[in-house]
Amino acid sequence: METGGVSKLTLGRLPTYLSYLKSLSEDSLPNISAAAIAAALGLGEVQVRKDLAAVSDAGKPKVGYLVSDLIRDLEHFLGYGTQNSAVLVGVGNLGLALLSYTGFAEYGLDIVAAFDKNQALIGTPVDGTPILPADQLPDFCRTHGVQIGILTVPAEVAQSCCDTLVQGGVRAIWNFAPVHLVAPEGVLIQRENMASSLALLSYHLKGAK
Amino acid sequence: METGGVSKLTLGRLPTYLSYLKSLSEDSLPNISAAAIAAALGLGEVQVRKDLAAVSDAGKPKVGYLVSDLIRDLEHFLGYGTQNSAVLVGVGNLGLALLSYTGFAEYGLDIVAAFDKNQALIGTPVDGTPILPADQLPDFCRTHGVQIGILTVPAEVAQSCCDTLVQGGVRAIWNFAPVHLVAPEGVLIQRENMASSLALLSYHLKGAK
Repeated sequence: METGGVSKLTLGRLPTYLSYLKSLSEDSLPNISAAAIAAALGLGEVQVRKDLAAVSDAGKPKVGYLVSDLIRDLEHFLGYGTQNSAVLVGVGNLGLALLSYTGFAEYGLDIVAAFDKNQALIGTPVDGTPILPADQLPDFCRTHGVQIGILTVPAEVAQSCCDTLVQGGVRAIWNFAPVHLVAPEGVLIQRENMASSLALLSYHLKGAK
Repeated sequence: METGGVSKLTLGRLPTYLSYLKSLSEDSLPNISAAAIAAALGLGEVQVRKDLAAVSDAGKPKVGYLVSDLIRDLEHFLGYGTQNSAVLVGVGNLGLALLSYTGFAEYGLDIVAAFDKNQALIGTPVDGTPILPADQLPDFCRTHGVQIGILTVPAEVAQSCCDTLVQGGVRAIWNFAPVHLVAPEGVLIQRENMASSLALLSYHLKGAK
């Protein structure tokens, strides 16, 4: 995937640096070295140094980074300052879990509505988010300028829901359904691939036996 | 991470090949080429060829792979044939979502019990899985030879729950809490890092503006 300047792997690690830096108490020293970050997160020092250099020029030899500057640069690079409207499609258990999760605002993600075809769910907001009928999805996205769609539907309807989101002008889709989706160029499909994680766990145990 | 022979990235892609091959209808041709798999999944042909060669020697020039053989080799390599007992810790919305998900059995994952410290949840099984008091966790793991722990607890208690799982003899931990965990050598921590996915979505939209 093209990510303009930094690799997808680097990009994937940046939120880890950010959450670690934010977890440091205010009593900590104002500065931190790439070596200290690497040690705390179990990563290679060279990798951390390279990742951070790609997003911030605030590092100084022998002094390291001013924590507050590095947090600011990471947030700016990741675009967390700008709020992105999102809709969630499929209000099952996973959908409910994501609607209840309060941590998304930190990443600039604002779930403005959820959609389901089950009439029984429509009308009762979940943690403040309205649940709307699935057939209103494309109109809602267009009217509200929604850019992100979160798919928590069963695999067999994921592609048609994806198509509907694209029709509504959505530019990035976070896919939790265990299926590969196809979308036009310019639309990012980010798959939350739990099967990959399970493979790593299973393979680790197999090796340990 | 050491994965004995194949890279973590290759390992992460294997379940995608497997689910794609399984999704092919019985009316499809019995053979498939690496090129066809690459095209269907939007991956590079060289990469697919290399990944598959690492797990199967069933590929033949001009003929490709017999789909059924490749499925068998992928499942064997990933260790899906052997059943792994797992416990889930933290029965919030995300925990409930995972307990209700029926797809784990396919990966050899058998969630035998869930644990929570909330007394109100104890005793009523969720989709057949018993919910037990958190203080029984290490004993239960030892007694039942549990190898996998799934952590769906808040970030602030994740490390202590991880320690408890390790005490109980668990060898692989699937961590959904947004925090970096530390465990002894030989214990795999697989983090389901939703923040990384969000970073990719946010960065994509920032570039598109």
